[in-house]
Amino acid sequence: MSFLRHLLRSRSNVSPIKQTRFFTTSGLSSLVPTEKGKDKPRVVVLGTGWAACRLMKGIDTGLYDVVCVSPRNHMVFTPLLASTCVGTLEFRSVAEPVSSIQPAISRLPGSYFFLSRCTGVNTDTHMIECEAAVTDEDRDPLKPWKFKIAYDKLVIACGAEASTFGIHGVKEHAIFLREVHHAQEIRRKLLLNLMLSDMPGISEEEKRRLLHCVVVGGGPTGVEFSGELSDFIMNDVTKRYTHVKDYIHVTLIEANEILSSFDIRLRQYAVKQLTKSGVRLVRGVVKDVQGEKIILNDGEEVPYGLLVWSTGVGPSSFIRSLELPKSPGGRVGIDEWLRVPSVPDVFAIGDCSGFVESTGKPVLPALAQVAERQGKYLAGLLNRIGKADGGYANTSVNIELGEPFVYKHLGSMATVGRYKALVDLRQSKETKGISIAGFVSWFIWRSAYLTRVMSWRNRLYVAINWLTTLLFGRDISRI
Amino acid sequence: MSFLRHLLRSRSNVSPIKQTRFFTTSGLSSLVPTEKGKDKPRVVVLGTGWAACRLMKGIDTGLYDVVCVSPRNHMVFTPLLASTCVGTLEFRSVAEPVSSIQPAISRLPGSYFFLSRCTGVNTDTHMIECEAAVTDEDRDPLKPWKFKIAYDKLVIACGAEASTFGIHGVKEHAIFLREVHHAQEIRRKLLLNLMLSDMPGISEEEKRRLLHCVVVGGGPTGVEFSGELSDFIMNDVTKRYTHVKDYIHVTLIEANEILSSFDIRLRQYAVKQLTKSGVRLVRGVVKDVQGEKIILNDGEEVPYGLLVWSTGVGPSSFIRSLELPKSPGGRVGIDEWLRVPSVPDVFAIGDCSGFVESTGKPVLPALAQVAERQGKYLAGLLNRIGKADGGYANTSVNIELGEPFVYKHLGSMATVGRYKALVDLRQSKETKGISIAGFVSWFIWRSAYLTRVMSWRNRLYVAINWLTTLLFGRDISRI
Repeated sequence: MSFLRHLLRSRSNVSPIKQTRFFTTSGLSSLVPTEKGKDKPRVVVLGTGWAACRLMKGIDTGLYDVVCVSPRNHMVFTPLLASTCVGTLEFRSVAEPVSSIQPAISRLPGSYFFLSRCTGVNTDTHMIECEAAVTDEDRDPLKPWKFKIAYDKLVIACGAEASTFGIHGVKEHAIFLREVHHAQEIRRKLLLNLMLSDMPGISEEEKRRLLHCVVVGGGPTGVEFSGELSDFIMNDVTKRYTHVKDYIHVTLIEANEILSSFDIRLRQYAVKQLTKSGVRLVRGVVKDVQGEKIILNDGEEVPYGLLVWSTGVGPSSFIRSLELPKSPGGRVGIDEWLRVPSVPDVFAIGDCSGFVESTGKPVLPALAQVAERQGKYLAGLLNRIGKADGGYANTSVNIELGEPFVYKHLGSMATVGRYKALVDLRQSKETKGISIAGFVSWFIWRSAYLTRVMSWRNRLYVAINWLTTLLFGRDISRI
Repeated sequence: MSFLRHLLRSRSNVSPIKQTRFFTTSGLSSLVPTEKGKDKPRVVVLGTGWAACRLMKGIDTGLYDVVCVSPRNHMVFTPLLASTCVGTLEFRSVAEPVSSIQPAISRLPGSYFFLSRCTGVNTDTHMIECEAAVTDEDRDPLKPWKFKIAYDKLVIACGAEASTFGIHGVKEHAIFLREVHHAQEIRRKLLLNLMLSDMPGISEEEKRRLLHCVVVGGGPTGVEFSGELSDFIMNDVTKRYTHVKDYIHVTLIEANEILSSFDIRLRQYAVKQLTKSGVRLVRGVVKDVQGEKIILNDGEEVPYGLLVWSTGVGPSSFIRSLELPKSPGGRVGIDEWLRVPSVPDVFAIGDCSGFVESTGKPVLPALAQVAERQGKYLAGLLNRIGKADGGYANTSVNIELGEPFVYKHLGSMATVGRYKALVDLRQSKETKGISIAGFVSWFIWRSAYLTRVMSWRNRLYVAINWLTTLLFGRDISRI
């Protein structure tokens, strides 16, 4: 057995270059500042959402080392997440590993992906503090593993948090729909309730509660999820849960109008389609959420078996904790070049960022489209700075930045189930433009996403998932 | 909002036929005994493994109502489970919903699937007691929901449990490889350790520990998993975890010989192939398992980051608790027609059953092949009994049962990684026969499984998974 001892103690001199990069200072291990001539400048990216991934995809890894810090090693193709909850798509088809998006982070000696959360930013020393993102469930003894990273450029792109508007019980009882594990939880719960409701001796009232799916929030996510659910009920539950098919219902609760950012005709179409599919649309405000029922403002009690919460997003506690300039609404403030004003070498993009008031521009909506465009723009800007020899910390003061970032809205899309979708190609709520609804726009919606799902692997899987759902129905194994 | 109240209280008179089937007796709801002339006889099947699913697939649902009781609503295609741990196959490709295997259980009014565990069998009253299989994680208030089911025929097919030989710490620290959630846990842990080992400041020793994958048990499962792991390391880790690729190792610990049931030449071939792939084969006996290391009998300490335990199976606590005749080794005893002797209308098949000593036959090995053959045989036997009007409880005493069950071993197969497999077509260890190894047998192995994965949907997915793994490498998103 001595080979084991040998195996476990050998190679202590492996990769001396990497060794020199790590230092232990003031009790914490660090990725120390880069040295001009010896290292490439280091871009530290916080997050693996649309903004961060688009940035990493576009950055020139010949100019920069890229270090990504995120509790998630993959990007989630959020517009398709609702489809995974009912088995139309598989979870893995909508997740793209960061190292496929930017292979350098797993290959080049100075680029890294750290499964961690950033816990603090020191803009004076150009250092961030991080903590390994390991849950108790992972039973890992390293926890909490803390370390520091020196940056030349810092890009804050860690997104936003689901808003609960301070309503009691939302976090405990409702499920959000922002991550793959949320979709997994919704799927498990839905299939569990379908099976529980068929147990001997369950009362009629309890059956109806277990199979009452309530969606709060009538934005695109809530509407698409409701549409997917009603498709699942009409196509799969009726065939494969015959005993309980008459007990399952979907209710969509929205305080104002559903899809309020869409053209009025599209909104009317959506209401008609959803109602036709059996989704009950309720205008109401949730006051309190309990384990088996929600209480509305008018006192009405709504028993539920599954509660999905999608009422938009707000700044996360990490973003709130940062002592940086802020935009209206509490996001990290940025100027027209996506720089955080008054703080050198710090940028912010995506849902966590917003123009500071002095730019005179409105805070952009929290959309994948905005994040993706900002990521692309910033990759170009950083490459330009890098080429002009401004990549290292505090060296880009006099570099010509070129055109500022301008957002041009390309339109909005949403499905409403039953092979129907809405496509709104107006540039803003006030302008005129094309808006279409129905099967053709559903086809456009699918095609648009199929060409945007990032890797060929996932394009193939999404296409095959759609095909098999059409041919064989949705998968209902509860794994 | 009154529609909601209406929605939740309406339809209390739905499906009167189903209503009459449920009774509440002595505090517990029941599926009451069937009545001749009014109902079909009821076969209650415990389990959703190979034996139970093959039985349900073959049973004539024109003759019987089928009620399946299992904590899992799908069958797991166990021989391919090892491939899912490293992303060669997707989890869902190896899981088949019970209602696809036997659609009647979700469609016919008297057939059911109950997501439950059987907790007791009363052979005098022909009744079983069940408890809903809901975990705390599911935060469900029904728990523990108990009920009873009256049976006309009872088939015990709930499988076996992984054996730990009473070794301390195995259940706490090792991961078995018998269910999809085990494979998911292994995958999450493996990807987590790959990422943790790359954190700033992790010592060389700790890196090597985190990336030391130890497999205990050299049967087909342990060997196949080791082979898959080394494939993953050689093809994917080297490309996508460049920083830590030299630290990852696989050790396979077996007390005796690996693949002891295979032909000697095949065993030698397997040893050669595994060694070539970098798997360290260690002959040793585990004495104690701790959080970060195992202790062998000779006192050697083996630090590990991932520990997979596959040392065979033994009777579960439920099987041990049953007051029924037993076979040598503590399984439920059966005669040559798979009936439990002295207990009318009770049958047992698969890993939980074994011939009683008086049959003079040996207890069959715990193999998918045995379980599948028994399920098929028993479906035929029950159909024969049903046609002869012996389907109801206590009515099959004088029915001619036909030929007894005879097991004919068709051979064994196992992969060892690198597109190599072993196929042993001898009928037993003592007889002569064909045994081949290498790429051709790997091809046979794949083809054999592809035609056996039960639904067309999963055949398609397994083929596509294999294809994309070949084209794009394995998926490494940790969802």
